[in-house]
Amino acid sequence: MEDITYHPIGLINTPYKEAKNIPIQGAFDENTEGCCCLDEKYAGGLLDLDGFSHAIILYHFDKSGVVKLRTSPFLEDVEHGIFAIRGPARPNSIGLTVVKITKIEGNRLFFVGVDMLDGTPILDIKPYVKYFDNRDNVKSGWVDQHFENGNIPQMLSKFRF
Amino acid sequence: MEDITYHPIGLINTPYKEAKNIPIQGAFDENTEGCCCLDEKYAGGLLDLDGFSHAIILYHFDKSGVVKLRTSPFLEDVEHGIFAIRGPARPNSIGLTVVKITKIEGNRLFFVGVDMLDGTPILDIKPYVKYFDNRDNVKSGWVDQHFENGNIPQMLSKFRF
Repeated sequence: MEDITYHPIGLINTPYKEAKNIPIQGAFDENTEGCCCLDEKYAGGLLDLDGFSHAIILYHFDKSGVVKLRTSPFLEDVEHGIFAIRGPARPNSIGLTVVKITKIEGNRLFFVGVDMLDGTPILDIKPYVKYFDNRDNVKSGWVDQHFENGNIPQMLSKFRF
Repeated sequence: MEDITYHPIGLINTPYKEAKNIPIQGAFDENTEGCCCLDEKYAGGLLDLDGFSHAIILYHFDKSGVVKLRTSPFLEDVEHGIFAIRGPARPNSIGLTVVKITKIEGNRLFFVGVDMLDGTPILDIKPYVKYFDNRDNVKSGWVDQHFENGNIPQMLSKFRF
């Protein structure tokens, strides 16, 4: 299988300069705004994305560490396969976050639900389409026990880092 | 910004050898099975993914055509920005499908909800976590009108191709 080369389409600006500074529950924080700042040549590609409430941001975890096929996520000490967790040190270090769109101006997409480091390279932006991306009857494996009874785990922000 | 190079972790096997053969409503077809066949060295990375009902497959659209920043999806003739549609000819041609896991055996993940071509290179597999990936109050922009009153559009399978 041949290597695949991508070129970032822009950078994500967030208030978080280091992983340790990403606040608890960052993914559920509706007050902190991030921005996908695209290279200006891609501004036209954002046309009509403002009709969607949410987007899927794909980005490159450029600060990820050594890849282990089995590792413990930050939510618990039990080891799981890397394809059963969302951490950054993956065979191909692609990050995925569903965000809520706040506004789009020119080449800039503003959003809340920030859990990325400042300066993260963006690979792609897709519209979140509920008919494909929302699912019923979802079992979330080892993650479910941490969210029982509406709990939001204190280590949530580190789940991804 | 520097180029980013990934190496496929395996290939997707599906019954569809050509895009035109992907049946209508493939994404909602629970009878047709596909398989993510990982390189054997990655088999250990699937540990505990079987506790999840769904997975997110990221793959490389290796048959995508010429990239246009504004183009009409197959659902309609109106042009939208490439970041507001899910088609394959994107600045970085990454495909994303949420699938329902049927079984995992060794290095093979079987699933339904197939809308990929046979032989598609796999970039990553992530667990679908309802606390992050399911959203309420979703507006799906230009797509919504095609799904009004529970309709499933006849051109759905071509939405991605």
